[in-house]
Amino acid sequence: MTPLKLSPLSPTEFPNMPSLAGVELATAATGVKYKDRDDLLLMVFPPKTNLAGVFTKSSTAAVSVHLSKQVVQSNIGRCLLVNAGNANAFTGRNGDQSADSILSYLSKISGISQKSMMMASTGVIGEPLDDSLICLHLNKLWESKGTADWQQAANAIKTTDTFAKASSQTIYFDDQPVHICAIAKGSGMIAPDMATMLGFIVTDAEIEPSLLQKMLTQINAKSFNAITVDSDTSTSDMVILAATATSKVKISSDAGAGELAEKFKTSLRLVMTDLAHQIVKDGEGASKFITVNVKGAISDHSAHIIAKSIANSPLVKTAIAGEDANWGRIVMAVGKAGEPAERDKLSIKIGGILVAENGQKSDGYTEAMISDHMKSNTILIDVDLQLQNGTSTVWTCDLTHDYISINADYRS
Amino acid sequence: MTPLKLSPLSPTEFPNMPSLAGVELATAATGVKYKDRDDLLLMVFPPKTNLAGVFTKSSTAAVSVHLSKQVVQSNIGRCLLVNAGNANAFTGRNGDQSADSILSYLSKISGISQKSMMMASTGVIGEPLDDSLICLHLNKLWESKGTADWQQAANAIKTTDTFAKASSQTIYFDDQPVHICAIAKGSGMIAPDMATMLGFIVTDAEIEPSLLQKMLTQINAKSFNAITVDSDTSTSDMVILAATATSKVKISSDAGAGELAEKFKTSLRLVMTDLAHQIVKDGEGASKFITVNVKGAISDHSAHIIAKSIANSPLVKTAIAGEDANWGRIVMAVGKAGEPAERDKLSIKIGGILVAENGQKSDGYTEAMISDHMKSNTILIDVDLQLQNGTSTVWTCDLTHDYISINADYRS
Repeated sequence: MTPLKLSPLSPTEFPNMPSLAGVELATAATGVKYKDRDDLLLMVFPPKTNLAGVFTKSSTAAVSVHLSKQVVQSNIGRCLLVNAGNANAFTGRNGDQSADSILSYLSKISGISQKSMMMASTGVIGEPLDDSLICLHLNKLWESKGTADWQQAANAIKTTDTFAKASSQTIYFDDQPVHICAIAKGSGMIAPDMATMLGFIVTDAEIEPSLLQKMLTQINAKSFNAITVDSDTSTSDMVILAATATSKVKISSDAGAGELAEKFKTSLRLVMTDLAHQIVKDGEGASKFITVNVKGAISDHSAHIIAKSIANSPLVKTAIAGEDANWGRIVMAVGKAGEPAERDKLSIKIGGILVAENGQKSDGYTEAMISDHMKSNTILIDVDLQLQNGTSTVWTCDLTHDYISINADYRS
Repeated sequence: MTPLKLSPLSPTEFPNMPSLAGVELATAATGVKYKDRDDLLLMVFPPKTNLAGVFTKSSTAAVSVHLSKQVVQSNIGRCLLVNAGNANAFTGRNGDQSADSILSYLSKISGISQKSMMMASTGVIGEPLDDSLICLHLNKLWESKGTADWQQAANAIKTTDTFAKASSQTIYFDDQPVHICAIAKGSGMIAPDMATMLGFIVTDAEIEPSLLQKMLTQINAKSFNAITVDSDTSTSDMVILAATATSKVKISSDAGAGELAEKFKTSLRLVMTDLAHQIVKDGEGASKFITVNVKGAISDHSAHIIAKSIANSPLVKTAIAGEDANWGRIVMAVGKAGEPAERDKLSIKIGGILVAENGQKSDGYTEAMISDHMKSNTILIDVDLQLQNGTSTVWTCDLTHDYISINADYRS
């Protein structure tokens, strides 16, 4: 296939990422699917690392999802292997054996127990994964651990991504720095309802597993689970958060330690939201980044369903691609959501301008008032149902010809 | 806008439609949105006509939906007015008044009580409907009733439709003919979950309202409610079934009359399924007609959710547009549906060929076996979950560049 053109919403450069003591990265090019690029990532964690994870709820989840979930739950993870280009999903017992062969061989080389190994696979579904091709590179990968930087790591896990995605924060607690470093991949087959995509977040703080999981789950709901590209949910999605305890800072849920935890949580939220936005900005064919705010719903859950109904509507997304302020399609998407809404209470703003209220077009509104906003690459939609206090924000991108081109050709 | 090109799935010609005694049709061109074409349809029914209807469940339904629902429920409908180009939805009290002015004026001209008038409006949402422009044509429309044929009627209600949709059946009961004539419109904003599109079905049989409604609701669930073009549900959808009692045949639910009713129901199902298929074949940008059969689910409802998940998946639809036998995306769509499914029991056929079973690609399957099928314009997907006996069939079309072109430009 022809190389994908860089998303017009891409950041201008890869962010500065601090190194994280004790976390060793390595990448390799196996040629499983892609030529002339890295497609294998190894991430090794220091011994005291605590883990948290969220995983796809797909009933046809890949073997890597099941394996990594077990490791996270038992909190004994020491390393993570990620391969891009083949999801090893719906590959039956052969696929289970492929994953087993790879991790068993890596265990032999590294001396790390196989039970401590997490795996993530992303790419085409249903194609057998050639484990021998991956094993061939494991010796060198293990020997070179510590030589790759975050940019190489983020590049090695891409599929239809047009740019490498990373984000970091450094927080000072009494002059002691704590770092959060994270990478992610995702561009198509992105839906917020049940799952996420691949995201790997590491911090050098010391945080007990239950608190780590609680923070990840809470923030995930309003970051990775609040984005959608195409309403399709992958079989391979996971976000893993590892706390290595290599800094001098311990974050706990003990009484009195709440402020510390909140400070850390704020930074974690910034990192995860930044990455979630980067995934939308690299949405297949995306030319506009769209924020959908819903308030006044009967509950947060109801607001989320309505926000997703708008963000997933092909007609809303194509109108925005065409720079057409077609707010009637937003009304349609609210209406089809199946959640309580009253025509005469509903109000809609685009780019901060009131376009509809009292069950009709707003007095004084003309399309000229938002034509500049529609031409920009950042679109803001605010819906107020004026029923109760439920709110939700969902981020998405527009639906363009390039989405069709990418997906009518690319085997993902 | 440039004229839409005829769907490649279009029938070669408009079907032969019998005339239906007592039903008078008339059309007019108001210029509300379209130039040089009819956009207004009047259908007048004889006095003893019984009615049934199904309506959109959208919480932002158009005023025409509320009005027609009332008339159907009280079974006093004597005529139906349909305008194309403006949905008169989310037009507030002004929109309510527009509809009222139009029907009140038509009542004055015709002598038919306003309470007996049904209305359907389809087209752009949120734009005020100029009732004076429509009223201007009502005198002539009323005078010309009986002059239009079914083809003119079907043409007058089109929006982005590229062909006029109609279907009919004639059934003989002891040499007495009974006719069913039906027209429909729909091309985009078509989703099966809660609603339908515009469909108007007339028969000269005598059928009591409760039986009429029961038959319509049952068949609707497996015809119009089993299609999807783009997962978007319109604010204006309705299907109305009118039985004029002008033939000599009475169909009842009395004991002993069951065979007669079944015979009629079979024909009604043929007509409604034919029209539902025509709508999919005129789906915006459609180049392939896709049948998704799901069996072995834990219930019919569960099977329907899974079938819709496949039929609405942008990735499945773009793969088919690209003639790519990417069955992994079907696995993904089953997985994301949120319904019970087991990887190792699931089997998938494309074009009747087994492509996946036992949790992996089927032994002996090669893409060459179905490449001719993928190139054809009629695609068949069979999914067997092998859990219990739930079944469902959903029809859809592929997702192509033309869908984007139509919807990034057209204000609907």
